[in-house]
Amino acid sequence: MSLAPDLRKISESLRDHRPQPRPGVLTDEQIDTLASLVGEENVSADPIELSRLARTTLPEGTTPAGILWASCREQVQAVVGWAAAHDFPIYPISTGKNWGYGDLCAPVAGCLVLDLSRMNRILQVDVQLAYAVVEPGVTQGQLAEHLAEQNLPLMVDATGAGPDASLIGNTLERGFGHTAYGDRFAHVACLEAVLPDGSLLTTGFGAYANAKARHVYKWGLGPSLDGLLTQSNFAIVTRMTVWLMPRPPRLLAYFITLCDRSAIGPLVERLRPLRLAGTLRSTSHCFNDRRLLTGAARFPYDRVDGRQALEVADPEWLERVCRERRIPAWGVSGSITGTPTEVRAARRTLRRALAGMRGLERLFFVDERKLARLERLARVAARLRPLAPLASLVRNVRLGFQLLDGRPVYESLKGSHWRARHDPGPTQDPLASQCGLVWVSPVLPMTGEAVEELERIAEPILHRFGFEFQVSMAFLNERSICAILPISFDRASADETARARDCHERLLQILLDHGYVPYRGSVAAQKKMREAAPVYWQAVARLKKAWDPADILAPGRYLQPLRDR
Amino acid sequence: MSLAPDLRKISESLRDHRPQPRPGVLTDEQIDTLASLVGEENVSADPIELSRLARTTLPEGTTPAGILWASCREQVQAVVGWAAAHDFPIYPISTGKNWGYGDLCAPVAGCLVLDLSRMNRILQVDVQLAYAVVEPGVTQGQLAEHLAEQNLPLMVDATGAGPDASLIGNTLERGFGHTAYGDRFAHVACLEAVLPDGSLLTTGFGAYANAKARHVYKWGLGPSLDGLLTQSNFAIVTRMTVWLMPRPPRLLAYFITLCDRSAIGPLVERLRPLRLAGTLRSTSHCFNDRRLLTGAARFPYDRVDGRQALEVADPEWLERVCRERRIPAWGVSGSITGTPTEVRAARRTLRRALAGMRGLERLFFVDERKLARLERLARVAARLRPLAPLASLVRNVRLGFQLLDGRPVYESLKGSHWRARHDPGPTQDPLASQCGLVWVSPVLPMTGEAVEELERIAEPILHRFGFEFQVSMAFLNERSICAILPISFDRASADETARARDCHERLLQILLDHGYVPYRGSVAAQKKMREAAPVYWQAVARLKKAWDPADILAPGRYLQPLRDR
Repeated sequence: MSLAPDLRKISESLRDHRPQPRPGVLTDEQIDTLASLVGEENVSADPIELSRLARTTLPEGTTPAGILWASCREQVQAVVGWAAAHDFPIYPISTGKNWGYGDLCAPVAGCLVLDLSRMNRILQVDVQLAYAVVEPGVTQGQLAEHLAEQNLPLMVDATGAGPDASLIGNTLERGFGHTAYGDRFAHVACLEAVLPDGSLLTTGFGAYANAKARHVYKWGLGPSLDGLLTQSNFAIVTRMTVWLMPRPPRLLAYFITLCDRSAIGPLVERLRPLRLAGTLRSTSHCFNDRRLLTGAARFPYDRVDGRQALEVADPEWLERVCRERRIPAWGVSGSITGTPTEVRAARRTLRRALAGMRGLERLFFVDERKLARLERLARVAARLRPLAPLASLVRNVRLGFQLLDGRPVYESLKGSHWRARHDPGPTQDPLASQCGLVWVSPVLPMTGEAVEELERIAEPILHRFGFEFQVSMAFLNERSICAILPISFDRASADETARARDCHERLLQILLDHGYVPYRGSVAAQKKMREAAPVYWQAVARLKKAWDPADILAPGRYLQPLRDR
Repeated sequence: MSLAPDLRKISESLRDHRPQPRPGVLTDEQIDTLASLVGEENVSADPIELSRLARTTLPEGTTPAGILWASCREQVQAVVGWAAAHDFPIYPISTGKNWGYGDLCAPVAGCLVLDLSRMNRILQVDVQLAYAVVEPGVTQGQLAEHLAEQNLPLMVDATGAGPDASLIGNTLERGFGHTAYGDRFAHVACLEAVLPDGSLLTTGFGAYANAKARHVYKWGLGPSLDGLLTQSNFAIVTRMTVWLMPRPPRLLAYFITLCDRSAIGPLVERLRPLRLAGTLRSTSHCFNDRRLLTGAARFPYDRVDGRQALEVADPEWLERVCRERRIPAWGVSGSITGTPTEVRAARRTLRRALAGMRGLERLFFVDERKLARLERLARVAARLRPLAPLASLVRNVRLGFQLLDGRPVYESLKGSHWRARHDPGPTQDPLASQCGLVWVSPVLPMTGEAVEELERIAEPILHRFGFEFQVSMAFLNERSICAILPISFDRASADETARARDCHERLLQILLDHGYVPYRGSVAAQKKMREAAPVYWQAVARLKKAWDPADILAPGRYLQPLRDR
């Protein structure tokens, strides 16, 4: 196990290190070589294809040099080998649904996009130990459907990114869903990854070819490398074990509505002890009125011009529509699972915790049966005008319930199109409606004080640039909340796009200044994020160089491109 | 943020890389320099001190070149700087209680031991968000006592390593305790660490000087480096945030006893669904009869000579003593927490799950009040001969209860001295009794089948080398079990020591061959562990070189010394 050759290689590459510009285009010869690796039909540098790849919901995207669809890890290794030999940067994507954080666009133009969406096998599902082994192209919808079709008593965590989002892609960005396994990265193991030198690494006990606990224990033996493969550009993950939840004997969703915007802080204070105690274990989400509205309506461009936030330009309309559609100041969803007796006990604890709370409109519980009953009622009520808002309410409850139940749905993407002028079609594809969307997602301690401070800081910034203050708050773990602030804009409007860019920059900076650091960042955000933590990113850069001295892999993803230094 | 100087430095160090032998002793001049950094009284190369440091419970230890006690992180940085300048290897220890895995001994002789035990401040305790910030010298006993003294409604996870074990030291080895936060590494954040170049890194959101969520969210932004700092030699951790559990309204311990050795597999099958469902959340431990016996008695050298396992040499005696002391075939401890109603509900689920199980002797529940009542009863019963065994039973229950209640105790170390000839004194210090102890701790999937296979493999090996088959099984997470197999021997006996060494080697190899990889390893185990996963360790070695090209820091800890390659 001598490392001598590697030492030499690294040493040479460092000596030869000259920041040479990369061409950013693929020659015909290069395309031929790549075609010989993966088949002609699986490589393209067609301009129409490239412009399709350059689409984004962010203010700015990048155009790649080409795209290649790999169908197995051996092809990934071959392409990495080719890239290293030709000093050509590659940008791997799983399914490219990184909505609001860069979508499928590479941080720098001129990469070869390595599309792994066709590696979409569910390699194993273990019912006894409750896990699945998946490839990068496996989407959350695909796995959920597979479990349902096979009638397996297992659930996958569901995020709001829609059924077509990759499980691996989202987990590597440390995305989170709505269930007890909402912190997805905490619930995976055994990552198989192609390193920039082409070797195939498996993390955790996966490092041991025959390890019986490879799928069921995360840390492995020796330093744990999983963390290094997230929010980074260190390797290309080609396989992952996702832990699944056994379907509980009883799943009871709870919904809390507040009639007072300022009651969110006190609510957090009352829920925190229950989350810390383990009474509540799901990743609860709290949505404010404007965030809820985007799921139910489109921006009223017929009334206001979009240069001001709706709540500033036409607060009466906002209030009326919310009243009509029964949209509360805040809506909260979460779930309780267990045996019927356990669920009853936890429900009682939750009821008591909220008893007498100022600003509480309602706490209600639904399970599948009750929800079906409500839906029947809503269908009847729809014919009676005064009861029509019930239908909208029930639709929202169904949407929340599906996510809590591990069933990703397209509807949860609806809010992305708030200011779009085009129709996204049935899959609610954010790239189809030309909607503009930037997520800013700072993490806060789980206190009412922090939640209120965040609102005080963020709302005026959004208003200053003419955008609605939409926010959802997710109870990430027992102690922290992630506030997700979308900047929704019309990407067809140059004015709105420019304002969104400036708003994003300003919002991010002021949040960083106040110590509210995002859990994840779009390419547009990463520079600021790095500058605020120079020691950390310098340490990371040294590790990156050890594995990828030529910066072949996803240059500029989180880490500054090594050649720009 | 240019990295140019680092690049040059790394490049040079690689060019100059010659495996030169290190002297392994400190010159008087070096000692003087070190004394100028930390004070004369805080450096020693005294032979008596060195031989104290060379003591171990493993078959073999190593003698360092000296020891230095640092009192703050700035001193740690200064010492690291000195070590780099003098190419002198340093070996940091927190409190050096790495029992059965190498204690405080460095993997290679001739290091400067950097003792951090005097950095023992509890820097912060946050009751609202339930965490503490500690230095490396802070022990689990110290923190537990602090919480009790200050009457804070918080609990720390407790391991069986005794009150004097460091929280940071144990967590960096990914040790686990008995509570719901048993997977300790999963419940820490914001590691502050001195890198081999002397810089001070903080992980997670700690990378951002003002981050409000630094203590409450683990992953931070960008690649998560925490995992890299565990079971490795990448940096010296000088500060860490430990998440604490709010004291629950009700803590109910459950104890399960089995009257049949072979019932452990079926028990695991019945408990797994409850652990997966979240009904049971504590890190349950199952102890077999021989493991339980070591906590209650010493090896009967007056009856047998120790060349054979007790259960082979004198099974009748073993059976009689177990009967007399009410030691079951298996004893299991765990806890249920929550409101009284929640606890009742979970207790009912557990009762139902075990109903009618073959081999089940008893399932009983105790809380603090009931236990105190039992103890009063036992004191009375102690006077009546036929009831005397009750006292022993109640003592065991108290011991189990304390760990479940977050109170580390010296008694849990008692088993270590099973074959020792000397008395360890009140703190049960394994180095005081000259006991021999090697832990082998493979991880298994949480299935009855795996548990049974492990027993089938391991028991004959221990018997072949003349040692008892002691085992405890810890429910590490929802899907895996760690089997902890101690090889207990008399270190004063050359014969037993030699057999223990061979037994360890054989046991480890056969476990690896069967895919049962340990979660952690003594120095003696690490070579075999590396050889079984060459790609992984090569990838790790490249990262290590990026931060520590001269291998100054803890050479040979998990990773092969870079100069030996």
